[in-house]
Order: sequence, then structure tokens, then C-alpha cells
Amino acid sequence: MLVDGKPQRTIWPDEDGTSFFVIDQTRLPDRFEVVRLADVDSAAHAIRAMQVRGAPLIGVTAAYGMALALKRDSSDAGLEHARRLLLGTRPTAVNLGWALARVTRAMALLPPSVRADAAWALASEVAEEDVATCEQIGRRGADHLRELARARHGKPLRVLTHCNAGWLATVDFGTALAPVYRLFDEGIPVFVWVDETRPRNQGYLTAWELRGHGVPHSVIADNAGGHYMQRGEVDVCLVGSDRTTRHGDVCNKIGTYLKALAARDCQIPFYAAVPSSTIDFDTDDASAIPIEERDPSEVSSRPEVNARNPAFDVTPARLVSGIITERGVATASEAGLRALFPVEPAANESMSEGSR
Amino acid sequence: MLVDGKPQRTIWPDEDGTSFFVIDQTRLPDRFEVVRLADVDSAAHAIRAMQVRGAPLIGVTAAYGMALALKRDSSDAGLEHARRLLLGTRPTAVNLGWALARVTRAMALLPPSVRADAAWALASEVAEEDVATCEQIGRRGADHLRELARARHGKPLRVLTHCNAGWLATVDFGTALAPVYRLFDEGIPVFVWVDETRPRNQGYLTAWELRGHGVPHSVIADNAGGHYMQRGEVDVCLVGSDRTTRHGDVCNKIGTYLKALAARDCQIPFYAAVPSSTIDFDTDDASAIPIEERDPSEVSSRPEVNARNPAFDVTPARLVSGIITERGVATASEAGLRALFPVEPAANESMSEGSR
Repeated sequence: MLVDGKPQRTIWPDEDGTSFFVIDQTRLPDRFEVVRLADVDSAAHAIRAMQVRGAPLIGVTAAYGMALALKRDSSDAGLEHARRLLLGTRPTAVNLGWALARVTRAMALLPPSVRADAAWALASEVAEEDVATCEQIGRRGADHLRELARARHGKPLRVLTHCNAGWLATVDFGTALAPVYRLFDEGIPVFVWVDETRPRNQGYLTAWELRGHGVPHSVIADNAGGHYMQRGEVDVCLVGSDRTTRHGDVCNKIGTYLKALAARDCQIPFYAAVPSSTIDFDTDDASAIPIEERDPSEVSSRPEVNARNPAFDVTPARLVSGIITERGVATASEAGLRALFPVEPAANESMSEGSR
Repeated sequence: MLVDGKPQRTIWPDEDGTSFFVIDQTRLPDRFEVVRLADVDSAAHAIRAMQVRGAPLIGVTAAYGMALALKRDSSDAGLEHARRLLLGTRPTAVNLGWALARVTRAMALLPPSVRADAAWALASEVAEEDVATCEQIGRRGADHLRELARARHGKPLRVLTHCNAGWLATVDFGTALAPVYRLFDEGIPVFVWVDETRPRNQGYLTAWELRGHGVPHSVIADNAGGHYMQRGEVDVCLVGSDRTTRHGDVCNKIGTYLKALAARDCQIPFYAAVPSSTIDFDTDDASAIPIEERDPSEVSSRPEVNARNPAFDVTPARLVSGIITERGVATASEAGLRALFPVEPAANESMSEGSR
């Protein structure tokens, strides 16, 4: 998408193939800074410190991280060491394990001598696939929302979103925001309520993105979304997902569940927009998803304050109106997801291996 | 309650009767500072700028503000000017109108020459009544919660609270926290989940209070409460209320509605603890309650960010398990409230006058 009128991605390889670049999202929205990552340790740090964040982008970063690791040590031991290092960075997003398993499986079939180049090419492929997938999510989602937009008779379609599931969370286009950008680019008026998303304030990333693209929006405290839904000022909720169970339970940024409850109470449709790589067909029980507990200092830096900081929650499928994927909109159920993904994608088969 | 081991109230008169003192709550929890308020303009500023906050404390501050105004100008015009000035400070809390109407009605019956002294005495009476009322809320609430605490078999009763409805929101003891302090003082183990309460972060006032009294607690982002309810780590929700309709709808700090929805979804009891002065027997339709919209800079001080900042929301009676008052626990319904308050208190009758 556009930054200061110029097309921009969140991650891209250096031309000489020795490193890759990412936007340092811990500096946004104050400063637009690019970081060069030249080894697997830097890549792992970037994920852990949330210089990159968002399930799809974490997956792509991990793939490039693996490629960098194999440039140093392409042995089986090197492969396994890099996989473990990267897998340990963040526990909840399923794309991390998915991308690592994909690279690991492919590399294990190759002789060490060609692994580094092959991994680099595969990382680029994972990145390009993400772009194509997000573009499709945008198309499918926009098609689905067009009727809601029409019902507004020329007034803006008012979308509420939580966290950042825009292009910053992916390589480009975004997940939840992809349909919003698409409708906007088609000339359909849209307005976005942006949850601030404490404690990390990813809402300000969303606002930065939307401002860059010219999409009208307001940032609100996480507390305020229910109020605006009660007052009839929200037409639809759109969020991303870090992991979706095969039953359609949506694990996403902490606080998503509360917005889904309000949407249900106010009879407002609530959608998660997800690339199929975030659907975890192996997880049966949403309560078994590991919920990352991050440093309490993200909540309060005061030493005397005792804080807790869970990073995700689970929105049960019963509260989800539909799951927008690159293949269309599924009902939030095993039957619905299977209708779009009848055979588990090869990548998902290997995911359980990566998650072990 | 205790600050550094010494008993402390939020508001108290100067001995010479020319001014009154309040804790400047905009400085907490960083600094404990006391402000001397010597005229009605300072009192109005203190309410507007939230140096004092919390419906009960706002009411008492307004009463003292009226008394100071009458020292300067005890005419009918002076009375009316002061009433209007103070009434315009904040729109949602019903105690403001209640306290102003109470003082205005009483003073209108007196000759101007004695109004200043009478108003001063009345303000002190309003303050003492608030203390007695909150103490009763503590007793009644603790009695009601004792069974829930017993069911924990010696493990702490885990209370979730939103905003600050502790002693800082009143003259002493608090509303929602009064039963918590009482149980704690009886030796019953309690633990409090403290919602941060963006954008003003009143949760840190609550944490400061609880720390001062030694009550175990953790501060969490407003997003996190639903997650802990889902995981079975919350036994009861306790909040205050700035205005409760006669049907039992609870208007309280923005975000309260979301927690009530989660409590209902997770079958956790949800109580509002309120002095009867906050019950608005004249308001039939909760959607008619004016919701204060505060300065967007409270959400974000960045000039480029477009923010919205509603300060309260309404939790419908259907989500409220009960309303803890100084006379006992009412069901959240007109019948329930009328059973405890069969005749409207005189103060409430006059409230509509004050609200005009």
C-alpha cells in the first residue's frame, strides 16, 4: 500500500541476497524506520520484540530467517537449531509454525549444499503467496460486504476493527483491512472505528495505515466500541486472527472477544478475515491454544504496579458471523471451513510437525 | 481509608470555613498532592479537570462549591449563577444535579444573610452522609458476597472491577470497593482484577488505593477481563455507577457494558454498587442519558490522530445481577429498586429540578 504516495511492503529482500529489510513497527507511528536483518538471531529478535508483528508477516519473517540461518550452517543440525530458535519467539500465531514447517520439510529433502539458495527462493515465494492471498481476501471480503455498504445508501459503511490486521500485519494489503481498502478504492464510502488496542497500541498502526491511504477513521479507547455498537454507529466488525480452529473459533488480539460479544448483543455482523495458513485444522479445543503472556511492563512500566498481560483471547465460533478467506466467506464451523478447504492444504498437514 | 498508614478522606473543609481541600487525583498515582479550593470557580475547575471524580465525590465537591459561592454572593442571583456554573461541569453523573438541587432548594427557603453558613453546614452533612452510605454499601455488599467467598474454600474471592469506584470516588470507603475492603478487613482472602480503564487510567487510582490498604490485585488492560472470565479466573464483577435508571440500567465508565456482556456469557455475577443518590428515578429511557464526550486528546495527544472519547456507557438491567445499595441488594428492575426505596427520597424528588 502507499506510504507518502509510494508503494511499500513490510518486508523485502536485499538484492544481493545476504539480508532482508523490514519496517520497524515498534517505531511507528512516530517514525518510519527500516531495519536490515542479516542473521537468524536478528530475525528472531525482530519477531520477539514485535518489530514485525501480525501472524502472516511473522510467518514470512521466519521463512527469511531460516534462509539466513542456512547460509551460515546448512546442516541438518543447523536447520533444526534455526527452526527451534524461531519457533520459540512467539507461541500463539499459527503461521510461525506453518512457515517454519514448510521451509524445514522442503530443506530436509535437499542436500545441504543447495539449501541456502533454495530457502531464500522459498521465503520469497511465501511472501508473494501472502500478497496474493491478502489480495484475494480483499476481493472476497469486499464482495461480501458490498450489500451492507449498499444498505447505507451512500453514507459510509462503518467498520470497527481491533488491533492491526492491515498491510503492516502482512506483506501487503492486509487481512481485515484488505476488504476496506478494496471498497474504498472502488469509491464506496467507508469509515473505520479503530480500537486503540492496549497495551501495545496497534490501533495507532492501523490509523497510520488508513491515514496514509486516505481512509476516514477515528481511534477510540478499547472500552468505547460497545457503546458505539449500542448507539447504532457500527455496521460491521472486521478483525484478523492469529489462529482459527477447525471449528471456527478465532484466536486474535486480546479484547477481540469483548467486541464480538457486543456485536452479537447489538445484532451487528462480526467477521474474521484470515489467510488459510492461519486456520489450524489440528486444533480441536480452542482452550488448548497457548495464550502468550507478555511482559507486564507493556501494561505499566511503574515498578510498584502488579500487572498481567495476556496477548490474545479466543472468540467462540458462535459469535462469529463468518470467516473471510482467500477462497470466499465460510461459516464459522468445521463444515463451513471444510466446504472451502475440503482437503487440508499440504502446508497445514506439515504444520503439526512444526508445532511439536 | 489508609494512606501510608494514616486515615485519609478525599475532601475536607478548612477549619476556618473559608475553603476546602481535595486530593488532586490528576496527580495520582505519581504524587499525593492536596489542593485548596477557595472559590466556586476553583471548585468547578476541579470537577471539570477531574481533580475530583467519581459521582459521589463530585456531588460533595459541588455542595462545598455552592457554599463558597454563597460566601461571596448569597443573593438569589448568586445562588442560581453558582448552580448553573457547577451543573455545567460534567453532564452524566446524577449526583451533581442531586447535590446542587439539594443545596439550592434548602438555600432558597432561607434569607440570604444566613445562606453562606447554612450551605457550609449542609455541604458537611452531604459529605458525612456519603461516608455513612458507603460504609453501609460495604456492609450490605460484603454480606451478599460472603457466600461466594465461602464457595472458594479459603482461596481468594476474585473480583473484577472497572474504573475507580473506591474511596477516591467518594469521601471515604468507596462504592464497588467498599465490600472488598470490608471482606478483606474481616480476614476473608480477596484478589482484585483492576481494569486499567483507558483513556483516563483510573485503574491506577484503584491499584494505588488497594496497595495502600494491602489488598492483593493485578492491573490488566481493559481488553483482558473477558479472557480471564472465560478461563474461570473471575468470581464476581463489581462496578460503580454514575447514574442508574429506575429500571436498573447502569450508566458507568465507558467499557463497563463490555465487561457485563462477558460476565453474562461466562455466567459470572455482575453487580453495581451505588448510593441511592445515584439512582435516577426520573429517567425512564437509558438511551436519553447524556453521555459526556470528553476531549479527544485524552485518547491521543498526537495532533494527526482523529479520536473520539465518550466517557460512559449504559449496561442494560438484563445484564446486571443486582444493585448493591446502602439499604441492601436490589434486583436490577423498577420493582427491585422500589422494594428498597418505596418512597422516592426527598433528594431525588428535587433532582429533576436540579437537572433542568
